Amino acid sequence: MAGDQREPSTAEQVAREASLYGPFTDVVRELVDATIRTEIDDAEVAGIQTELASIVARLRTRQLDGPYAVNNRGRHWGNTVVGLRNAIAPPLHIERESTGRAWSSFHLGAAYEGPPGLVHGGVSALVLDQMLGEATGAGGKPGMTASLTLTYRRATALGDLRAEAWIERTEGIKTWARGHLSDADGVTVEAEGLFILPRWAREKAAAQPPPSFE
Amino acid sequence: MAGDQREPSTAEQVAREASLYGPFTDVVRELVDATIRTEIDDAEVAGIQTELASIVARLRTRQLDGPYAVNNRGRHWGNTVVGLRNAIAPPLHIERESTGRAWSSFHLGAAYEGPPGLVHGGVSALVLDQMLGEATGAGGKPGMTASLTLTYRRATALGDLRAEAWIERTEGIKTWARGHLSDADGVTVEAEGLFILPRWAREKAAAQPPPSFE
Repeated sequence: MAGDQREPSTAEQVAREASLYGPFTDVVRELVDATIRTEIDDAEVAGIQTELASIVARLRTRQLDGPYAVNNRGRHWGNTVVGLRNAIAPPLHIERESTGRAWSSFHLGAAYEGPPGLVHGGVSALVLDQMLGEATGAGGKPGMTASLTLTYRRATALGDLRAEAWIERTEGIKTWARGHLSDADGVTVEAEGLFILPRWAREKAAAQPPPSFE
Repeated sequence: MAGDQREPSTAEQVAREASLYGPFTDVVRELVDATIRTEIDDAEVAGIQTELASIVARLRTRQLDGPYAVNNRGRHWGNTVVGLRNAIAPPLHIERESTGRAWSSFHLGAAYEGPPGLVHGGVSALVLDQMLGEATGAGGKPGMTASLTLTYRRATALGDLRAEAWIERTEGIKTWARGHLSDADGVTVEAEGLFILPRWAREKAAAQPPPSFE
């Protein structure tokens, strides 16, 4: 551990970890939602706090020194939008085409609220940044966000949503992508972004298989 | 509560709830981090999952029907960035000036990771959307995001960060704001946005004290 890169996992190990931590993290997501919405008695809340603190201590008896991807060769299970082990992530399950297209259907509940009952404008930006990055990666042009512009057409209600993104054009290490968030009635937020593969990533890519930027 | 608006709380009630749910939610934040980083034995992880599922069920025995602000007159405790009861929120504690300026110092850990060891580009957008909105609200010009442009100057490492924002100019119901995210070495991400007070909010504002858009 101690921040060291570990050996690459076998496909079997990855599948085993996914089947363990996928359902575990889903329960933590439920807990995040219930923490916002519960109305049980104060004494019960305080009692549960003590139980949770004990659970945290048990989980921390052996843990990574730092963030997940640093310790796992870029595996994106810690990612804020798609991370299998990140309870902040809805998570998005993203479909891709090698033509540079990505799309996803997902649900956003109480934890993603900005104005009453509506998706936080910054959450729409968070999701679309990921989606545009996924499209560039799918098209073989991975990069980090250099600029991103969001245009909010109308309010997005919390609930079932869809996002899609595609590569608009590329020029060397630069890739321009567009995308949008939509509900049952159509597009609510549009995005366009420029993605650039940074020098450190290009050097790393030359030395080993490309890391995931998800 | 079936989605009903409740009666306004007294300052004393709000303070009591904050002292109960603030520390509770902090423990849930710790749990989110530990869920990403733990390396304890599989059997122990599975056992804790069962305990957490039982805790969620207890919290859900009495709960709000929907998102938090819908049921609490716009109180922003469910907000994704600043919500006292939202474990997704770091949360940001934001300082304000009525001249239309807002700033905050905060820490982003493993749960906010995009590329290995770095803040997710969309998380920077999420934080800055909130900060620009706070600046417009502080200046008496609350609104919802109409457009937002992020320029990423360089990668932002996970850790201690600062964000600030200010009103650039206003024109009727439109307010333009700017801001940035910075680390110890200076600015990493810049933002500019247009905020507009929607009609439904103007009508509501005419009928009762203004809701919080945080």
